[in-house]
Amino acid sequence: MAELLPSIKSPEDLQNLNTAQLNQLAGEIREVLCNLVATRTAHFASNLGVVELCIALHRTFDFKQDRLIWDTGHQVYPHKLVTGRYDQFNTMRTKGGLMGYPNPNESDYDLFMTGHAGASVSTVMGLASGDYLAGHGDRHAVAVIGDGAFPCGMVFEALNNAKTLKGNLLIILNDNKMSICPRVGGVADYFDRLRMNSFYTGFKHEIVKALNMVPVFGDPTERFLAQLKEGVKAGLHGGMLFEELGVNYIGPIDGHNIPLLRKYMEMVKTQKGPTLLHVVTEKGHGYDPAAEDPVYYHTPPAICKPGEAKPEEKREGSKAYTNYARDAIADVMRRNDKVTVLTAAMCQGTKMEPLRDEFGDRFFDTGICESHTVAFAAGQAKAGLRPIVNIYSTFLQRSFDQVFQEVALQDLPVVFTMDRAGITAADGPTHHGMYDVGYMRMFPNMIVMAPGDADELTEMLQFAVDADHPTAIRYPKTNAENIKRDRTPLELGKAEVLKRGQDGAVICYGAQLADAKKAVEMLAKDGLDVTLVNARFVKPFDAETILPILRESPFVITVEEGALLTGFGSALLEQAADAGVDASHVKRLGIPDVFVQHGDRAEILAELQLDSLGIATVCRQLAGAERKVSSSH
Amino acid sequence: MAELLPSIKSPEDLQNLNTAQLNQLAGEIREVLCNLVATRTAHFASNLGVVELCIALHRTFDFKQDRLIWDTGHQVYPHKLVTGRYDQFNTMRTKGGLMGYPNPNESDYDLFMTGHAGASVSTVMGLASGDYLAGHGDRHAVAVIGDGAFPCGMVFEALNNAKTLKGNLLIILNDNKMSICPRVGGVADYFDRLRMNSFYTGFKHEIVKALNMVPVFGDPTERFLAQLKEGVKAGLHGGMLFEELGVNYIGPIDGHNIPLLRKYMEMVKTQKGPTLLHVVTEKGHGYDPAAEDPVYYHTPPAICKPGEAKPEEKREGSKAYTNYARDAIADVMRRNDKVTVLTAAMCQGTKMEPLRDEFGDRFFDTGICESHTVAFAAGQAKAGLRPIVNIYSTFLQRSFDQVFQEVALQDLPVVFTMDRAGITAADGPTHHGMYDVGYMRMFPNMIVMAPGDADELTEMLQFAVDADHPTAIRYPKTNAENIKRDRTPLELGKAEVLKRGQDGAVICYGAQLADAKKAVEMLAKDGLDVTLVNARFVKPFDAETILPILRESPFVITVEEGALLTGFGSALLEQAADAGVDASHVKRLGIPDVFVQHGDRAEILAELQLDSLGIATVCRQLAGAERKVSSSH
Repeated sequence: MAELLPSIKSPEDLQNLNTAQLNQLAGEIREVLCNLVATRTAHFASNLGVVELCIALHRTFDFKQDRLIWDTGHQVYPHKLVTGRYDQFNTMRTKGGLMGYPNPNESDYDLFMTGHAGASVSTVMGLASGDYLAGHGDRHAVAVIGDGAFPCGMVFEALNNAKTLKGNLLIILNDNKMSICPRVGGVADYFDRLRMNSFYTGFKHEIVKALNMVPVFGDPTERFLAQLKEGVKAGLHGGMLFEELGVNYIGPIDGHNIPLLRKYMEMVKTQKGPTLLHVVTEKGHGYDPAAEDPVYYHTPPAICKPGEAKPEEKREGSKAYTNYARDAIADVMRRNDKVTVLTAAMCQGTKMEPLRDEFGDRFFDTGICESHTVAFAAGQAKAGLRPIVNIYSTFLQRSFDQVFQEVALQDLPVVFTMDRAGITAADGPTHHGMYDVGYMRMFPNMIVMAPGDADELTEMLQFAVDADHPTAIRYPKTNAENIKRDRTPLELGKAEVLKRGQDGAVICYGAQLADAKKAVEMLAKDGLDVTLVNARFVKPFDAETILPILRESPFVITVEEGALLTGFGSALLEQAADAGVDASHVKRLGIPDVFVQHGDRAEILAELQLDSLGIATVCRQLAGAERKVSSSH
Repeated sequence: MAELLPSIKSPEDLQNLNTAQLNQLAGEIREVLCNLVATRTAHFASNLGVVELCIALHRTFDFKQDRLIWDTGHQVYPHKLVTGRYDQFNTMRTKGGLMGYPNPNESDYDLFMTGHAGASVSTVMGLASGDYLAGHGDRHAVAVIGDGAFPCGMVFEALNNAKTLKGNLLIILNDNKMSICPRVGGVADYFDRLRMNSFYTGFKHEIVKALNMVPVFGDPTERFLAQLKEGVKAGLHGGMLFEELGVNYIGPIDGHNIPLLRKYMEMVKTQKGPTLLHVVTEKGHGYDPAAEDPVYYHTPPAICKPGEAKPEEKREGSKAYTNYARDAIADVMRRNDKVTVLTAAMCQGTKMEPLRDEFGDRFFDTGICESHTVAFAAGQAKAGLRPIVNIYSTFLQRSFDQVFQEVALQDLPVVFTMDRAGITAADGPTHHGMYDVGYMRMFPNMIVMAPGDADELTEMLQFAVDADHPTAIRYPKTNAENIKRDRTPLELGKAEVLKRGQDGAVICYGAQLADAKKAVEMLAKDGLDVTLVNARFVKPFDAETILPILRESPFVITVEEGALLTGFGSALLEQAADAGVDASHVKRLGIPDVFVQHGDRAEILAELQLDSLGIATVCRQLAGAERKVSSSH
């Protein structure tokens, strides 16, 4: 039972606590975290890892003035608990409740919504720059960034600019050796070597001091000696990668020792210039099963109470689109040895662990490096391979320019499987995949698809791997039904008409097809005979099939789980106008021009009328309006 | 007069040349480059700098098999000259002629169109990966990347993945100390220090060898000694930043010495694992004025014949939108000390040198780091500043995700001035700014504008700086006319109606307004009374003004210098459908769904019917069709 935590209404309340009490508080925070994941899916292991770090930060800095960004924001739970949100904590990730990421609408202590990794150093530098210019040069700006997020290119871009910054910049490298999946790449190995370096921490300043006493003259031998000295100094210094860029490196230190953390934080507060403090934490710290399997416990299923065995494939059914995609990818990889698959640290989220094991040399996990991933895939395609880039719709936004220049412009056969396209529920606006229809279809050469059901996803993937152009397939984070029907074989740029009726038409792009079919069946019972189209392609667009339906139908509804602006319905309107077809009777259902908050996916879709009931309701309204118009003539 | 060069039909013809002949060839290539810029604007100084490097590469590798990417591609002229394009060289950057960047449609030696910087390491790694998997593991893959392009985040992402690569990767760092403008940031300073290191190159291997003979035991003292040894080795080794990431570093070496270049290239050919060869070149080498002022001679105006004085502001008139934007930015910066301005290494292109001098601490050149730049600006905005991000439309694509997460999602008042929006002429498809209307308007909270003339750009910038939301202003690379009229004051989301007529309507978004006005005046002489609207905003869209015009006009034309898919016309169709307004009589003029090649801007616009004649012609056609329909009733 928490005793201290309920009384912490703001970080100011930490100031009177002694070390023993701060340690007790850490324990209480862990208990609250464990209780939360006993009731629902939430980010867990990463939060267990930063409890002491969070307490030490709020005890050392004053973030009413100073600036703090958590990167990514899924490690923000302890921060929420000590900044006045303990009472609401059980609403976490529910509709209307606390967001699982920092949220400026909840608290002034949350500065940015940070769901995409790697932006913290840049934004915190911007904050420091702003404070400096506004005359608040005494404020501190702190970015806490995980080692998994560190390889993001924009972190490097920020580091490259750090030494020019006026203002106090502290980067805390939260090194837990993970990137949801085990981290990969040269930076990861480098961090491993730095950890081994702790031997030096005590000695190096003394040695460097002694070396500084060696005199330097113009004589070649002495010049050599001087340079040798510089060499030794450089070698003794850990963190050369940062030091070379003009960023002071300090560490590594134990991230679960509050007094030690505070000591170093106080020290770096007085440091001039940008500083990186390397803090080693254990993901899942304090809860043994999570520490032992931090991949699984990154966001464990709710059912997994402390001590219980972990259920297999519980969180998402084995019938999730994600799983069908994984199986379809495996299938094409078995049949075609030119096919490779790439993930940007999302091997677990995309359920691809079995592929990593089965296709070792054709499986590429690049880490959180989406821009590189797409350009790398383009190179593979140019060399004759058929790469599949398997990235969430929202994270592929990081590769917009590479999709343009490296793929579409070169017309290379790269396949994009855009998982989590649509409402991703509890994670909220940084994670919904809303914009991919627009950002993919705007580029020449792209073939852009969305399957209406599970089998169609498989078909589309086979089609994509054989296509001689770039292709993109979007699918949402949900279970995939298979719709019983006389299935029309997949053909480039051809829609499928499931039913023809004279009273109206529903044109569906993607996974709402099952719901649209249910709606049409409901309407049939009401005596409304409604056409149902499975559009399949937004590009090339099947004007030949769809425009006559526009002409003949008293009303038309387009259905898509994506942004209405620039989306599928928008493409249909372009086609109609180009052909001189009246589209004033087209009602577009989709996601309006707002950032959709977190909540239950089904609930959000129902609100947007993107479920069977919603579609049927809109059809009835339009049919009713149509009848009124007709009868008034 | 070139003697050797005309006979070089492919790199194979270099194989028989001795060093003296290769040097002669270098001289001949420089002569051809000088002759080219005497006749037209072209990339110059960067090409002068890589002549020897290019010759050495083609003499050492066989790029019929091996892979070569120039990053960015504007340094590709010598490469074009030695790969069979000498005869066409005088067509450079003209319509139908050679492209100023690598172009796979011209030659198999050009693998990727590379106009955006920093992708080379990723793509070349992809090529190496593909070759390895296809059983061509003996092939070499070479990226030549400038120090200006190096700070791009995706280069770091690629380096982070380099050590996992199977295949032969050689990165040639072409270090000329420039990034069009003088380079900035920690990486630049680091390269400067590396240059100082050349003293070591001779000695370090010997010393490292000697140090390796120190025995290592378990005893603490000896372990310390061993670690000291590692320290010395590390310090002696230049290029720690690369070595730490698992990339071998060799250099720096003189990039104008062909035999030396060849020697080192032969050496690294046999090296295992990814290798970076640091080559120091002089931008403008061999032509003194260019070497002395490489910023000016990056792409000098045609008139600037060798030996002639450089004309001031010759290349673009002082009436270019770019200049008006610069002056408007300076004006708001003078009046409001919260306004900052950011460029990503395009200080020269955006004519902002005077701002750098006048507003030192509020002027930020981040280097080619667009992703960081936007996130940094978001931080500034959050801290109360009013940052103006001044980036070309096409390069801002690199920041798509930062525009989404760091700016639009947080609803922060960042101003985007998107220069070069539209057809940028001689540079071609990597540089046209085609997609910004779609990629900006799809995000909630954005205010998206395009001025119809010069004064409107100034007004929009003032408006943007005072807005409490993110704003974007697009304008093309051309001179700005001021249109004489009773100017309607700028108001959020309001279009301006310049003229009302009953025969049709032209709705213009952006800089075609002057041409549209001319077209409408021409039509008036034909007896056609056409409405003319200056839309100003694509978001918020002025449905109130524009939809009634749609209802009342027999035909409607939308005019925009951008992609038709997802563009302004598309937004209009969305608004019409939402309001139940028939838009089947709307003809959208803009850039169709193809990659527009390089050429003269006016010529390209004329082809697209985006000039006064084109607009008038389309109006007449539509009016004629309308009359036919009417008379047949």
